[in-house]
Amino acid sequence: MKLEQIDGNTRLYAILGDPISAVRSPEVFNATFAALSMNAVFIPVHVAAEDLACAWAGLTRIRNMAGLVVTMPHKARVAALLDEVGLAGQVTGAINAARRDADGRWCGDMFDGVGFVDGLVAQGHRVAGWSVRLHGLGGAGTAIALALAESGVGRLALHDLDADRSDRLSRRLAAHFPHLHVSAGPARDDNFDAVVNATPLGMSASDPLPFDPAGLPPATLVIDAVTKPEMTPLLLRAAETGHRVHTGKHMHLGQARRVAEFFGFRLAPTDPAPHFTQEIVTCP
Amino acid sequence: MKLEQIDGNTRLYAILGDPISAVRSPEVFNATFAALSMNAVFIPVHVAAEDLACAWAGLTRIRNMAGLVVTMPHKARVAALLDEVGLAGQVTGAINAARRDADGRWCGDMFDGVGFVDGLVAQGHRVAGWSVRLHGLGGAGTAIALALAESGVGRLALHDLDADRSDRLSRRLAAHFPHLHVSAGPARDDNFDAVVNATPLGMSASDPLPFDPAGLPPATLVIDAVTKPEMTPLLLRAAETGHRVHTGKHMHLGQARRVAEFFGFRLAPTDPAPHFTQEIVTCP
Repeated sequence: MKLEQIDGNTRLYAILGDPISAVRSPEVFNATFAALSMNAVFIPVHVAAEDLACAWAGLTRIRNMAGLVVTMPHKARVAALLDEVGLAGQVTGAINAARRDADGRWCGDMFDGVGFVDGLVAQGHRVAGWSVRLHGLGGAGTAIALALAESGVGRLALHDLDADRSDRLSRRLAAHFPHLHVSAGPARDDNFDAVVNATPLGMSASDPLPFDPAGLPPATLVIDAVTKPEMTPLLLRAAETGHRVHTGKHMHLGQARRVAEFFGFRLAPTDPAPHFTQEIVTCP
Repeated sequence: MKLEQIDGNTRLYAILGDPISAVRSPEVFNATFAALSMNAVFIPVHVAAEDLACAWAGLTRIRNMAGLVVTMPHKARVAALLDEVGLAGQVTGAINAARRDADGRWCGDMFDGVGFVDGLVAQGHRVAGWSVRLHGLGGAGTAIALALAESGVGRLALHDLDADRSDRLSRRLAAHFPHLHVSAGPARDDNFDAVVNATPLGMSASDPLPFDPAGLPPATLVIDAVTKPEMTPLLLRAAETGHRVHTGKHMHLGQARRVAEFFGFRLAPTDPAPHFTQEIVTCP
């Protein structure tokens, strides 16, 4: 598939966001369309928050528009505009991908969480039975908590600046996953297999660390959902304190694969991770 | 510009129509973007008549949407949705291209007429002073009549099934072009330099001829605005009766060049005419 091969039968995929200039989804998905000779193109669509409802209505009426990836600041508002929202989207109140189904209805879901777990599994980690501390319960953090619970972690300690938010999610997960030990607020110990940053702290060089990995057991895996920079101040500090680290790019690649499957195709096996930055998954 | 080079800074151009599968604008414009290394992509956008207002509102709110080409059945309705319409668009009540200006306003115009004259000039014809008979005064025909008047033809005989329509346009052109001899209905003679079909007759193989070229003087040029097939039954008949013919592809290429200029770039010099069919200019 070359640019000049776009014709009247080309299917459209797009990413909606503001700002849009740094998104990398077009590159990742168009590489797949080229590799698979799919008659499809993935375009960047720059829509400001105040134009979202109108733009969404218009875009979803385009009959050859097959799928939309949604990034900041639209993830929560689009969830409310869909005909159907998957479980992760319902729990988080936000979506990051939507597709047109055969009956014309638009359905969407949040792939941050499953992409996060896929990224761990792809790096050889077995999540079932893990004890995990999670910082940040925005859209991405909530989705990660749900996916970890679904993947059979044994213990989940939730932290958020908004104590009500961590209490609510804790109760909700406890109700749905009776075998999961879930708690909100400061944990009674630091014996975690993994500690996750799902706050935006680290996206800006002047951010404080979301937590100090110095006190964690030596075997604890330190994970960051922030992708740019790939080695955040948190991960640099964790490397100094002798901990293994897991960067945000694994989550992003895992999630792009899930979004592609949701759209009905497989992401090309070429590894887009080096170029794959912050647009699909964004921190809360 | 390759498909994989589409990024967050790519500017969007699109053609709106229904049906959309046969349009060739994406091919023509994307070849130009590739040749000029412009960071832009031209996509097909399939919008049904009942969705036009909503889709137009949404598409024009996309901040990196730079230009829209409009084809059947939307040309008249879009003219009414624009912030500004050029003279040819005002006279015809229809547009076939619109762009976002620097101040965010959308302006459009109808390029069928100027494209038609450009196509004649490109083939070595001097239109000034010509005597022309024109059949069909829909959007394309009206635009052609205006462009011929502006190009200094001496005599223009207008024919349309709707006699009121030819009368109205005749009076309007007479008022604006005092040196033009313009008439509506049957002409007093057949001494024309050119006779033009701007009706849709010939798009379907079972259509009757819009007129019989047999009685025309041997030097009369027979012109068809229909592009698919390129050699319409009218042109085949004119060739049999020994007349020179001028096919619709010249008008289409001329018009694509005008639309590209309106969008702010030059169409690549590669000749897209063999592939350039009916989407930009369509008969009434």
